[in-house]
Amino acid sequence: MSDLAAPSPRHFGDRLAARVAERESQLVVGLDPDPERLWRALEPGPDAGGASSRADALAQSVLDHCRALIDAVASQCVAAKLQLACFERLGPAGWRVLFDVAAHARSASLLVIADGKRGDVPVSAHAYAQALVGQDEPPGAAGAGLGADATTVSPLLGGDALEPFLDRARRAGAGLFVLVRTSNAGAADVQDLELSDGRPLWERLAEMVAGAGERGARSGLADVGAVLGATAPEHLARARELMPEAIFLLPGVGTQGGDVEELGPAFGPGPAAALITASRSIADAHLEGGGPPERAAAAEAQRLRSLAWSLSG
Amino acid sequence: MSDLAAPSPRHFGDRLAARVAERESQLVVGLDPDPERLWRALEPGPDAGGASSRADALAQSVLDHCRALIDAVASQCVAAKLQLACFERLGPAGWRVLFDVAAHARSASLLVIADGKRGDVPVSAHAYAQALVGQDEPPGAAGAGLGADATTVSPLLGGDALEPFLDRARRAGAGLFVLVRTSNAGAADVQDLELSDGRPLWERLAEMVAGAGERGARSGLADVGAVLGATAPEHLARARELMPEAIFLLPGVGTQGGDVEELGPAFGPGPAAALITASRSIADAHLEGGGPPERAAAAEAQRLRSLAWSLSG
Repeated sequence: MSDLAAPSPRHFGDRLAARVAERESQLVVGLDPDPERLWRALEPGPDAGGASSRADALAQSVLDHCRALIDAVASQCVAAKLQLACFERLGPAGWRVLFDVAAHARSASLLVIADGKRGDVPVSAHAYAQALVGQDEPPGAAGAGLGADATTVSPLLGGDALEPFLDRARRAGAGLFVLVRTSNAGAADVQDLELSDGRPLWERLAEMVAGAGERGARSGLADVGAVLGATAPEHLARARELMPEAIFLLPGVGTQGGDVEELGPAFGPGPAAALITASRSIADAHLEGGGPPERAAAAEAQRLRSLAWSLSG
Repeated sequence: MSDLAAPSPRHFGDRLAARVAERESQLVVGLDPDPERLWRALEPGPDAGGASSRADALAQSVLDHCRALIDAVASQCVAAKLQLACFERLGPAGWRVLFDVAAHARSASLLVIADGKRGDVPVSAHAYAQALVGQDEPPGAAGAGLGADATTVSPLLGGDALEPFLDRARRAGAGLFVLVRTSNAGAADVQDLELSDGRPLWERLAEMVAGAGERGARSGLADVGAVLGATAPEHLARARELMPEAIFLLPGVGTQGGDVEELGPAFGPGPAAALITASRSIADAHLEGGGPPERAAAAEAQRLRSLAWSLSG
């Protein structure tokens, strides 16, 4: 983990490690905008333009909300995680907002994680990789891709379905976070199923992650990481054993019940070996403690950043 | 399966059964537009407007292609399956094209299947369900949802992650198709893993499907179906045993190697118990046999429709 000052510009693990060291943060702000919980409520407006104009007004409100949230917490964070579902539900205008929010996050020096959990047969996975990771395809549409620094993907369809994501990510110096053990209660239904060798399914997924990653020369971290819910910290030590070089993306802190203090094992290989994502606990901090949402969000982000940083020190 | 003439308007299984009977078709045309294989190639154009104008021109070409394909084959089909990845890769303009293609499919009396294979924690699954199934949310944005008649979903995150899709689909008279055993070679990596009880994982997923569905009063078909690759027909008889009321969505016919003739067991419960989807084998039929693409696509669709219909007779 030495020599972080001059990282290779191309490998995701190295890029992330340099960024984490520079910002002293492993915090990822989750952008999951909910039209019913925007900082500035949507004005009812004159309603002259009908459904399409209401959809545009809502899209603008969501964009304003996300920009304000980014501005409030960027100094405490290393990345922004955009929950694609929350943009898709805005209809056609939402995909434009997604791109604008990603641009704003970049302008605040944050890495962009596209949280879409996509997974499909290879030909379609190729198209998803173009949509989320690529910036230079399809032909004739330069700039059509979101150009995310990393994207979350589902392993359910197997190795050949991950390949197109991996190829494109690697060429772009981007990373993948593969679902291994998610933060929801129902995760146990499938991910914990016992295999014939006595292990839970998620351990097999962890092995896929470990086998797919390539190690960055400077950081020692792989370009294929794992999504592991912060709500099940009992799995982290075992997960680290199975994936010694993977970067862990740990959602579920705060509102979903995960405690930062229990995430220590995730940081074994170094400060950039785990990213802690918090969404509602930051965006809704003012509902708990009062005051302007910007100030409450900044304070909560600072608290989470310090906690995580002290764990990995 | 009697009395199909007056189906309940609300239950997906009943709606589909009526539509299949009326059109004598179980064929679903897959819309997976590839910018490099459009029927009418994108004109290079003067390029005055830069990347954004090129992206818009490409989006228009994709829309024209999809409309022409729908017009050519709609009379042979019961539904159109829109591969979301292929619209997302067009950037912000792509989500608009997706909506326009869905509207065109509806105007050609086709059901719309949104093939996104989404799967996320409950709060995000709720947003995806709004995006794809709902038409009346979020508040203030009437018409923001795609309003698909059915959507494909991933079961990897477990039962609580399927619930939001199920709730919304049921209220809209829509259906779900849960990934059970996909058509790609890598499907075996995870879906065929042997569980401690000696069965492959996909059989457990099949049980989730069987447990989640509600039976339509008229058709006897459930509103939760299964995606089963036509490329592994050896699984179909067993899948039917495990999911006696589920509608099977069978991709992989043609280009991916699946043979319609081997799909008989899927139709056990009745003509609407399985849908056969073909994408490239229809859209690219002219590359094989020559002639105008419209005519070749129509002929191939007619061939597939007749084959499937004779199997289920």
